[in-house]
Amino acid sequence: MVAATVPQQVAVVVGLGLIGGSLAAAMRAAGCAQHVRGYDLASSAREQALACGVVDAVAPTLEAALTGAAIVVVAVPTLAVECVFEAIRDHAPPGVLITDVASVKGSVLDAAQRVFGSLPPGLVPGHPIAGSERSGVGAARADLFRGHRVILTPHAQSSAAAVARMREIWELAGATVVCMDAGEHDRVLALTSHLPHVLAFTLVNVLSKQDASEEIFRFAAGGFRDFTRIASSDPVMWRDIALANRAALLGAIDLYAEGLAGLRAVVESADAAALHGAFLSAREARSRYLGTLSAPPSRPGEGE
Amino acid sequence: MVAATVPQQVAVVVGLGLIGGSLAAAMRAAGCAQHVRGYDLASSAREQALACGVVDAVAPTLEAALTGAAIVVVAVPTLAVECVFEAIRDHAPPGVLITDVASVKGSVLDAAQRVFGSLPPGLVPGHPIAGSERSGVGAARADLFRGHRVILTPHAQSSAAAVARMREIWELAGATVVCMDAGEHDRVLALTSHLPHVLAFTLVNVLSKQDASEEIFRFAAGGFRDFTRIASSDPVMWRDIALANRAALLGAIDLYAEGLAGLRAVVESADAAALHGAFLSAREARSRYLGTLSAPPSRPGEGE
Repeated sequence: MVAATVPQQVAVVVGLGLIGGSLAAAMRAAGCAQHVRGYDLASSAREQALACGVVDAVAPTLEAALTGAAIVVVAVPTLAVECVFEAIRDHAPPGVLITDVASVKGSVLDAAQRVFGSLPPGLVPGHPIAGSERSGVGAARADLFRGHRVILTPHAQSSAAAVARMREIWELAGATVVCMDAGEHDRVLALTSHLPHVLAFTLVNVLSKQDASEEIFRFAAGGFRDFTRIASSDPVMWRDIALANRAALLGAIDLYAEGLAGLRAVVESADAAALHGAFLSAREARSRYLGTLSAPPSRPGEGE
Repeated sequence: MVAATVPQQVAVVVGLGLIGGSLAAAMRAAGCAQHVRGYDLASSAREQALACGVVDAVAPTLEAALTGAAIVVVAVPTLAVECVFEAIRDHAPPGVLITDVASVKGSVLDAAQRVFGSLPPGLVPGHPIAGSERSGVGAARADLFRGHRVILTPHAQSSAAAVARMREIWELAGATVVCMDAGEHDRVLALTSHLPHVLAFTLVNVLSKQDASEEIFRFAAGGFRDFTRIASSDPVMWRDIALANRAALLGAIDLYAEGLAGLRAVVESADAAALHGAFLSAREARSRYLGTLSAPPSRPGEGE
């Protein structure tokens, strides 16, 4: 264990992918730390991060990376967070500020509890709501978070200073910060992100298992492409998310299956008014909540 | 009944929405007819079509519109096609070329059979695979179909000349024409278009019925917006499609529900390898069939 001789000066990013690389670049650009050091299991990612200039330096081992750290950003797949916490416990200075960017927050708190014995006051889990089917440090950009929301899920023992510092870093990266309970975060994200991904993965798999699937995909229009774009997301990341947020995701799938069965019954009964009502309420809800322009009033002549 | 004194010269578009208006504009631009005449139930659409220049003239009644027509394009909502067929039977010249742009083709043939007693040789149903959540003649453009596919579903009695003429018109509009059996069309479109719309409508409705739905939508990221964009489509059009393609849509919903139940079981059993396999196969299938660039190999650090 090495004492932090220059507190708040060395920021360490563990996991140099799209999000870790972009946050490292944003911290460098905003001067959040005198020195931004990166580490990734893959030497190719370390080399690329250095070549792209998203970090000041890379460390050859996780232990070396953590030495003297004032802040550690854990930007590895959700289920790898616990291993990095173990290294932080063993090699980072006491009192280090710890955050992460995982898509599930309950599992991060559980991992911290197991590794540290109690939740460290310096731990402030976070989740930037900025994603892409693109991945890898080559796609990293300092402005990735500009205009996006970041959810922080401090726990009851998180120090006010740690929360304030994390808020400041994200705001310097251009993000809007919101604090939320970890359980609430996981329920909301199960519905708005994890469920849609599961639905898109399922649709592509169902279609590709049909006879003549090649013909089927040939006639897929633009709406289908939009709808299934998220099915091109990283399978490892989504495997981890599904496992880490299993309970909330199962609940979301069940809610959805119930909704789909309800609409199926309306289609089966050929109830024109109920069908129109269901489609209209969806359009209105999307327009109301997402603030998109609603389409002009119903007109004859459209087709997809 | 008025005889066609100038065959192939007057093209009539009934239903001046996005698709009807765009096809009228494309026929004008390509010189498919000496005169392109439009009709819509709504006088506002007639006025707008004339003002936009997508037609040469508009008729004040459907009967007047059909007088002397060489070609009639029926571009009204799916379930309104039958009424227009009745007017064609009563007011258009015998032997007129008839096509439509409805998203369901079996119901169009059924309607023709009922109205005409047998399927007219001049009838060549069609379906341009070009859609948009935008609608109305104000969004019409002559190049809407450029680079898109159009499916023609001629029946056993369609004349070769009628099929060739419809192919020519669509090709002049810039589309790629494919011929397909109407039943096959309806099964394929149920999977690639009607099912995804139903899934998106259902997702938005399920989420908007949750407590704190406002908060839920606030944290919806870009993937959610893409995924639900088609839920902003016209409710009347989709009500008609769901009713007209009811049997194939129910089959598609059942296939999907089965696929979702299968993935749910994998999540519940926390089977990491099976989850990874399901997500990977979806990404690979989408990439293979839709020809999108696959994302780079899995890297730590992503998040949505």
